[in-house]
Parts: sequence; structure tokens; C-alpha cells
Amino acid sequence: MTEHRPSRAELTAFLEAEFPQNRCTLEELDEDGSVVVAHPVGESELRPGGTVSGPVMMTLADVALYIAILARIGIVPLAVTTNLAINFLRKPRADRRVVARCRLMKLGKSLAVGEVWIYSEGEDEPVAHATGTYAIPRER
Amino acid sequence: MTEHRPSRAELTAFLEAEFPQNRCTLEELDEDGSVVVAHPVGESELRPGGTVSGPVMMTLADVALYIAILARIGIVPLAVTTNLAINFLRKPRADRRVVARCRLMKLGKSLAVGEVWIYSEGEDEPVAHATGTYAIPRER
Amino acid sequence: MTEHRPSRAELTAFLEAEFPQNRCTLEELDEDGSVVVAHPVGESELRPGGTVSGPVMMTLADVALYIAILARIGIVPLAVTTNLAINFLRKPRADRRVVARCRLMKLGKSLAVGEVWIYSEGEDEPVAHATGTYAIPRER
Amino acid sequence: MTEHRPSRAELTAFLEAEFPQNRCTLEELDEDGSVVVAHPVGESELRPGGTVSGPVMMTLADVALYIAILARIGIVPLAVTTNLAINFLRKPRADRRVVARCRLMKLGKSLAVGEVWIYSEGEDEPVAHATGTYAIPRER
Repeated sequence: MTEHRPSRAELTAFLEAEFPQNRCTLEELDEDGSVVVAHPVGESELRPGGTVSGPVMMTLADVALYIAILARIGIVPLAVTTNLAINFLRKPRADRRVVARCRLMKLGKSLAVGEVWIYSEGEDEPVAHATGTYAIPRER
Repeated sequence: MTEHRPSRAELTAFLEAEFPQNRCTLEELDEDGSVVVAHPVGESELRPGGTVSGPVMMTLADVALYIAILARIGIVPLAVTTNLAINFLRKPRADRRVVARCRLMKLGKSLAVGEVWIYSEGEDEPVAHATGTYAIPRER
Repeated sequence: MTEHRPSRAELTAFLEAEFPQNRCTLEELDEDGSVVVAHPVGESELRPGGTVSGPVMMTLADVALYIAILARIGIVPLAVTTNLAINFLRKPRADRRVVARCRLMKLGKSLAVGEVWIYSEGEDEPVAHATGTYAIPRER
Repeated sequence: MTEHRPSRAELTAFLEAEFPQNRCTLEELDEDGSVVVAHPVGESELRPGGTVSGPVMMTLADVALYIAILARIGIVPLAVTTNLAINFLRKPRADRRVVARCRLMKLGKSLAVGEVWIYSEGEDEPVAHATGTYAIPRER
């Protein structure tokens, strides 16, 4: 396993190069390996009732997990999600970004499992909680 | 509960009016209440390795569930996802649409639960499987 | 991967030897690899309101998945569950066994994913639906 | 909603009366509403390889969620699980109890959602993580 832990700038550059459509931004990369990722909220993220759409939050959760794993194992483009489960808890605000904090629960040789808490930026109560598993390629 | 079951044209018109950014299309609406929904796959749906991104499939699963519920209870814009769990099974093809078939497992007064099988169009083996729950508003 | 597919008698003997506390029984082992497993329902499976307890159904789902995998890969005692998600759909009957039908969605080299439908014996409507993933040991 | 929050003794008495087969014990009931519940580990909880069986941990997660909800809303026997998802992270020890800490993420009028971390007693690293939803009866 590569021991080089990429910096925030390296991860951001990787996302921009490899996922040009991605709109999530890496906001924090903590010593303990947790990451904070944000997604803008505008017209195209809202659905009837003024709620942020579920898919925006699922995308954010998935990207946050992916970055949290890359932050630990190094930039391995071929890690893939094997499952993701999300609970929607409260209506997000229409006028704030959604922000995800992700922490890995387990980083094994072949599987990484993490949890993600999603908030409307600046709010205390989470709007969603997700857990997900990534398969890590063997040869790297 | 409204007894009017909307037609495919009514559901499509609703999606276009209320979810203008939505790129999923309703392909089939079956007698038994199952629906088939498709999402195009092009540059913006692919990720490194030539795979359709997880969020595209999660979006498709969520929209398929939503439509399957509206097809049964009538057009109730405020139904909201309470949870969604997805297993990614195989690498989808880069050159085909992804197609979801959704069937409700339960349609209760306050909760609807459904399952979604996702395929690369024309292929036999599923690329993902999701289950999800929607909360149905009380007053309608 | 071992190519020997164990018989129903072999699987039953394995369960009895290795899981002496297990109360699930293998009822069917189909050509296509799906299995049917049952759990008795008596005083100790019921909870207030005359419902079969959730843990009984989770146990049944887990055992059904395990057997479905062993039926395909051969008897490999060290396969372990990595996740399981269950939706409870209807109140099971207090006077019937609960019966699970499990089918694998994917059987990969390192992960197997399956789905389980649970019924009160003889009823048409499912009482629960589960999906689960098992990690398969590399060396066998 | 009843405002009486039951004491640890009241919850324990309720469990003993209504769930006589239950082997989980309520160990802590915190001010913030989180609860700690334990399950003994002996011959009947172990499976080949010396691991605590998955169903024991699922049972523990389900009971911990149930108690965390009752601790907040009062003793309402008819709350039922609508879904539960568990990730198994590490092999539990064969010689320790398994202990679950549960905290509610959301307590709504009709749904409560909680998360559960499970440990081998005295260990730092979790062996499993679960999230679950309970439906709360309307009339109480």
C-alpha cells in the first residue's frame, strides 16, 4: 500500500483532472483522516418544495467517501463503490451549500467502509447520514 | 388516497414541469405498477475506467422509485425519500443507456418501499440493485 | 474456486455440525442456485403485538444468504457477512413459520451479493426483504 | 407525545416483562438520550472461526435502537423496525461481551432514525455499525 498521503491540493487537482463534471469541493482534510466536502446549492439542485434533491446528497456522500479513501491510501483511480446507504433526516435549506463530513470506519486491504454526515452549511442538525463501502483494487 | 392513476404522458409532463434538470425518461408503465426509467450515458456520466458513475445510478434509482410511487398514488409532489440503499454489482457499459426497472414491495398509508434493478440497456445481468423508502404526505 | 456444488444433505449436515444452535432449516436448493430456508415461529420468536421479532428475520436472511453462497462455491466456513440491509414490510403471522427465498445477484471472486424475500409460510405478500454482502476468503 | 422519560429501571422492567427471551441488558442511559446495551457472548453466540455471529450483533443493534427510542418517547410497545442496515467491520472477540452505543439521529412524529456502534467490551475499535428506522405509532 502506498504510504504517501496526498495533500488537499493534490486531491483537488486529481478531481479536477479526472472528474471534470464534478461540482464537489474538498474543504478540509484532517489529521485523523476525516474530510469535509461541499456541494453548491442552486436552481439545479432544488426540487419541488424547496428541498435539495436526494441525488445531490447521494453524490456528495459518494464523493466524500471516495476522497476520504484516496486521502488515506493515495490516489488510486480504480477504487469503486460497492454499496451506499443513505438516510434522509431533515429538509436541507435551499439557500446554503450542503457540506459532508466523512470518516472511515474501516480501511482494510480490499474494502474501506466510511460514514458521512451531511449538513446545510452552518447548521447544527444533520440533514442526512450515509454509510458506504468501496472496493480497493489489489494491485497498486 | 386518490384513485386516479396517472398515465405515462401525465407523469412525463409532471417531471418536465417540476424537475426541468432531470434527464431520466419514463419508458414503460406497466399494469402491475412497475415502471422502467432510463438515463442517457455520455461523457458527463462516465468516470475513470469508463464506468458509469455511481451518482448517475443512484439518481436513476431515486427517480424510478419516485415515479413508481406517483404512478400508484397519483401525482403528489411532496413525497420524499427517507432512505435508499444501493449495491453496485457489475461495471456498466460506457456505450449504453442505463435502464431501471422499479417495483413497489409495499405501499402503505405513510411509507412506500420499492426495489430497483438497473441494467445497461440490452444486457441481461444487472449492474446495480437498490431499495428505497419514500414517506407519503398524510393530507392529500 | 471449488467446482463441487454441495447437495442439500451436505449443506444440512454442515449446518448441524458447525452451527448447533442454528434453528433454520434448508428446505429447497434449486438448479438456478436459489435456496429456501425456514425458521420456526413459537413463543420465543414473538414480540409484543404478536409479531415475529425483527432479529428472527435478520437471522433467517443471514443464514439464507450464507447457504446460497455455500451452495455455489462449496462449503467454505470462513465466508463472513460484510453488510446486511433489511426492510420490514408487513406484520408476519404468529402461527406460521417464516420462510426465506434467497438468490445471489452477484458471485464475484471476493464478494457475493444476494437478495432475500421473507414470507409467512403459505402467504403471497412478503413480510421482509433483505440484501447482503459476504466476503469470500481468497485462499480456498 | 408523552413527556415522561422512563428511567433505566423502568426500561429494564419493561424488557423483562415483555421480552422474556431477550438477553440484552441496558447498561447506561445518558442525559443526551444515548443508551448503552450489552449482549453476553458464550458458546451459543459464536460461529466457526471464533467470531460472534452476525445475528447476535443485529439483535443487539435492534434492541439498542428500540431502547433509545423508548427512552425518549416513553414506553410504547408498538414501535416497529422498518429497516436496519449493518456493516460488519472487524472480528469481535470471542471472550468479551458485545456492547452497543446507540444515539438517535432524528426523532420525528412518525419515524425515528438512530445509529449504533458495536464494540467488543473494552476495545477501542468498533466491530460493527448499524443504522435503523422505527415507525412510531400515531396514537399514544
